[in-house]
Amino acid sequence: MLVAGILAAPTPKTNADAWMALVAPMPSPALGAQLAALKAETAQTWDAGLGPGDWTASRLDAFRAELVRSGLSGFVLPRGDEHQGEYVAPRSERLAWLTGFNGSAGLAIILKDRAAIFVDGRYTLQVRNQTDQTLFEPRHLVDEPPADWLAKTVRRGDRIGYDPWLHTADALHRLREACAQAEAELVAVQRNPVDAVWSNQPPPLAPVIAYGIEFAGRDSAAKRTELAARLMADGYAAAVIAAPDAIAWLLNIRGGDVPHTPLPLSFAVLRADGQVDLFIDPRKLMPGLNSHLGNAVRVAPPAELGAALDALGRAKARVLVDTTSTACWISERLERAGARIGRGQDPCALPKACKNAVELDNIRAAHRRDGAALTRFLAWLAAEAPKGRLTELDAARRLLEFRRSGERFRDLSFSTISGAGANGAIVHYRVTAETSRPIESGTLYLVDSGAQYLDGTTDVTRTVAIGAPTAEQRDRFTRVLKGHIALATARFPKGTSGSQLDALARRALWEVGLDFDHGTGHGVGSYLSVHEGPHRISKAPNTVALQPGMIVSDEPGYYKTGAYGIRIENLIAVRELEAPAGAERPLLGFEVLTLAPIDRALVEPALMTAPETAWFDAYHARVRETLTPLVDEATAAWLAAATRPMGG
Amino acid sequence: MLVAGILAAPTPKTNADAWMALVAPMPSPALGAQLAALKAETAQTWDAGLGPGDWTASRLDAFRAELVRSGLSGFVLPRGDEHQGEYVAPRSERLAWLTGFNGSAGLAIILKDRAAIFVDGRYTLQVRNQTDQTLFEPRHLVDEPPADWLAKTVRRGDRIGYDPWLHTADALHRLREACAQAEAELVAVQRNPVDAVWSNQPPPLAPVIAYGIEFAGRDSAAKRTELAARLMADGYAAAVIAAPDAIAWLLNIRGGDVPHTPLPLSFAVLRADGQVDLFIDPRKLMPGLNSHLGNAVRVAPPAELGAALDALGRAKARVLVDTTSTACWISERLERAGARIGRGQDPCALPKACKNAVELDNIRAAHRRDGAALTRFLAWLAAEAPKGRLTELDAARRLLEFRRSGERFRDLSFSTISGAGANGAIVHYRVTAETSRPIESGTLYLVDSGAQYLDGTTDVTRTVAIGAPTAEQRDRFTRVLKGHIALATARFPKGTSGSQLDALARRALWEVGLDFDHGTGHGVGSYLSVHEGPHRISKAPNTVALQPGMIVSDEPGYYKTGAYGIRIENLIAVRELEAPAGAERPLLGFEVLTLAPIDRALVEPALMTAPETAWFDAYHARVRETLTPLVDEATAAWLAAATRPMGG
Repeated sequence: MLVAGILAAPTPKTNADAWMALVAPMPSPALGAQLAALKAETAQTWDAGLGPGDWTASRLDAFRAELVRSGLSGFVLPRGDEHQGEYVAPRSERLAWLTGFNGSAGLAIILKDRAAIFVDGRYTLQVRNQTDQTLFEPRHLVDEPPADWLAKTVRRGDRIGYDPWLHTADALHRLREACAQAEAELVAVQRNPVDAVWSNQPPPLAPVIAYGIEFAGRDSAAKRTELAARLMADGYAAAVIAAPDAIAWLLNIRGGDVPHTPLPLSFAVLRADGQVDLFIDPRKLMPGLNSHLGNAVRVAPPAELGAALDALGRAKARVLVDTTSTACWISERLERAGARIGRGQDPCALPKACKNAVELDNIRAAHRRDGAALTRFLAWLAAEAPKGRLTELDAARRLLEFRRSGERFRDLSFSTISGAGANGAIVHYRVTAETSRPIESGTLYLVDSGAQYLDGTTDVTRTVAIGAPTAEQRDRFTRVLKGHIALATARFPKGTSGSQLDALARRALWEVGLDFDHGTGHGVGSYLSVHEGPHRISKAPNTVALQPGMIVSDEPGYYKTGAYGIRIENLIAVRELEAPAGAERPLLGFEVLTLAPIDRALVEPALMTAPETAWFDAYHARVRETLTPLVDEATAAWLAAATRPMGG
Repeated sequence: MLVAGILAAPTPKTNADAWMALVAPMPSPALGAQLAALKAETAQTWDAGLGPGDWTASRLDAFRAELVRSGLSGFVLPRGDEHQGEYVAPRSERLAWLTGFNGSAGLAIILKDRAAIFVDGRYTLQVRNQTDQTLFEPRHLVDEPPADWLAKTVRRGDRIGYDPWLHTADALHRLREACAQAEAELVAVQRNPVDAVWSNQPPPLAPVIAYGIEFAGRDSAAKRTELAARLMADGYAAAVIAAPDAIAWLLNIRGGDVPHTPLPLSFAVLRADGQVDLFIDPRKLMPGLNSHLGNAVRVAPPAELGAALDALGRAKARVLVDTTSTACWISERLERAGARIGRGQDPCALPKACKNAVELDNIRAAHRRDGAALTRFLAWLAAEAPKGRLTELDAARRLLEFRRSGERFRDLSFSTISGAGANGAIVHYRVTAETSRPIESGTLYLVDSGAQYLDGTTDVTRTVAIGAPTAEQRDRFTRVLKGHIALATARFPKGTSGSQLDALARRALWEVGLDFDHGTGHGVGSYLSVHEGPHRISKAPNTVALQPGMIVSDEPGYYKTGAYGIRIENLIAVRELEAPAGAERPLLGFEVLTLAPIDRALVEPALMTAPETAWFDAYHARVRETLTPLVDEATAAWLAAATRPMGG
């Protein structure tokens, strides 16, 4: 999956529903009462009234009145939360609440007499549909950066507010320079002014559960000891962990505060002696969690984080902070208190990315189940699509049903991208009732989807010909496939980064003057984020060496605007290869995790080399052998045909 | 050429000899007298006494006495000059003068009672041979960075001196932090203490000549106007140009102050109105140069640079400075004076790298001449080597003779790397009378060399089997060749950087667990530096997009320690490709500039694909057709055999 879309399929509307699904298989006596109490507290749904309407003007008026009360001339409001995460809790959808725009990235600047909303290329249409342009002028986030607009627009002496929880120090730097240029002042607020006027903001209170050793594969104490030793060796007294997925990994806990990613919103301070302070709403902790966490983890309410940072400052402690992803509230508080900040990567990021043997075994099992569900869907699609009555929404709903019926299914890992014909060419397509197209014969259908299973996170894209494909479609598909195979079969020495491998996935397209405008691969968590770092495979430089156990997607594509889109995505895991005779360097390669047929009808055999065809046939043989026992007879028959060898 | 080696072959010993070669074809009436005066002034050779001996102790004593006079407890002395260039004038070989170590990179820290010299992996042996270890403790520049050593070793209250002309702000930052950690002070000196005790320091006074439009292809005024417009558009009043090769390109001038690169040491300030202040010793300017420079270029002595920076400061000017390569003396002076510094790339770097049509035509001509010389050498080697009497030095000398006899030859572009057998495996090998090995049957011989012609700079590596190669050598050579061909034939969209292509040159080696530990390609100047940026092809991230006219080397290799080395290097130029039918992106590829046979005896046909063999045969056909008319009959006969097709 490239970037989040939002599927208008039946995904739970409130956090509470999601929790029920999450905790259902782990009942406990106290649970029912606790859940009922939490559910009552968050029963409000926040999204009533989205889309342009009278409510935007009244909210904006109330917001501006609040600015006046706070002595501010304006405010910078990004889409984001205190953790700089990709998915945010409903409470943090402040930009959507105020403007109507609910894309995954954007920023508004509200001044006394005008306001602008900045979005990137994928949202230029959506922002016009969702916001009232007499209130918010749409701007291009990249072509006209907010800092430039600010420098031109604010007046001398203006006081422009920002919420220090919602910006990293790096991002803030440019805004501050822009205000300085205009002789205005950028002012941190104590409380976000949206929160002052948004009365029914739902708190993120999803239950937090233990993630068993049978899934995590490694004791939290062992993880903490290892990381603490590294902090000690590097001369740090502590590290601030602001990423909730890092905390979930470190403490072997899972939650449900944001959509599609089972993480509990929280902060942590990991100390060089292995102790952890976990700042989390204690109401969220399910019975037994305290004993799971143990004595070395001290639980405190989020409001106490500041005092803990102050204490580090008083001790003149050297503290590791990942300033690329940590709210400037934290780094500034530490610095003011007297701590010495060392800038570096979140210490959990790399060990979290390198899955252990137990995690990998679980992930393989999740992929078998996911592959069976996707294969049932593809067989169903092959039977139903020719009848000409399916739409993109129908297909996405049916795929969700197949997945839901499998074991350990908890959620989708992102909103399904279901694109027929020209919609498949919109890389960040989001199907809605308005845009849903019929899946017609003579087109390509692209489906990018994934699930959160208790034992693993999946993410897979297949492109299917509905009816007979054109020669051009076969040519393009085969070039994408060649790139996909080149990456899957790459052999490279230890120390190689994903950026170094990126061209392998593009070369067959480059040959004829084609390319695709997204990354080739992103990391994937273990029943955690479907997008995780620190590694990635992309044109943009990334110097993190690929290491055994890292999971990454392999998803080259091709998009013909207004016509069709192609993407072939498998998840692959880095593994050590046996050294061939004479090898001088430890060699790495990939294990393919995803199991689902790739449409043979779209492959042009003349473009394939013999080793490529051999890979394709061997992959299909493995898919067939693994999945046949897991599917019904009709699907098995379809699968046998879909995976018959291309080669002689 | 990967990195400079130094060849003990007959290269001019003093600058003055080099000037004679440089200006000989452009005599002028006043020249004789001016040259004689300059030559008298620099007749001293600086390198007498290199290598360990009594002189080091006495120089070190004198240096320490100077530190005491200056109130310093120690001093940081890097190998480098005021321009952070790769080659430095004899005057700037302060590290060699003081320590005996004359490698191309290193740094000494001299304290009152101990001193250390830091070098990287390629110089660990050399530094032990060239320095007295009772005086200078050898340290590893990477494993034990100078800043770490400084932090551990200096005492509270120490005053450690540095020459602000010899460090960039970035490099200095770490040293300053290290001193602060030890509660010591890092102090800028007004005059380098080596200069106070090195009495016969030779000034760099090589003549500066005009580089005609027939070579440069573009008027200096046009270049200045274009760059000035860009400065203006970006809101800069001026840019400081600290790189002498950038100034040489901008003003269409050439000089001879440093070995192997025809640049005049100088600084320049380019203003947004197109005017240039050139800070250069006026004695170096040959007759007619002032009129070549024209009224828009004001010539001033280097001592006036400070005053010019002060004036920019007083005007509160916004000044562009490339802080990655500019001495901190300059940026600090500007800041102190009140200027606003904008950090960015030297504005000459990118346009200099993109050669114009005239430059490319000249470079092609230079490569034909160079290819003829190298082919004569290879034919000679094929005849002589079997007799078993040649050494690495003999070969390098003979190659220089062949090049020298060609038109427009001015100098080698670097000291020839001539490595037989195990010496070929030393990537940064430097042949001396002591290390020179016989070129024996049953070994591989690697020669990496290049020349400065008035119309272009060359750089080429060939590896030749002396006698019958082993199957392993053929396998390795063929894998290097496959990488070389993969890069030479790459087709990629506009916007692609060299880093993205790097893996193509390594993939055939990676397949079997092999690799090489150097970059794949570096930029090359137009009768200028053999190493130039801003682009490069390497594992290390580089985000500069390759653009038409950029020249880059294509030089994968393989090195078996203690046995043999293989490298195949051609220069290639980025060019636009004709768009194939259906192409959606402008496509780029390469034109091969270097013309010389690649040893067929080392190619294992079974490892080559049909397109690779076709490329190899087509390249050889082009080499044969182009060079046959330029060589003697015996060489032509050898060339015909050396380039006969591999394919059917």
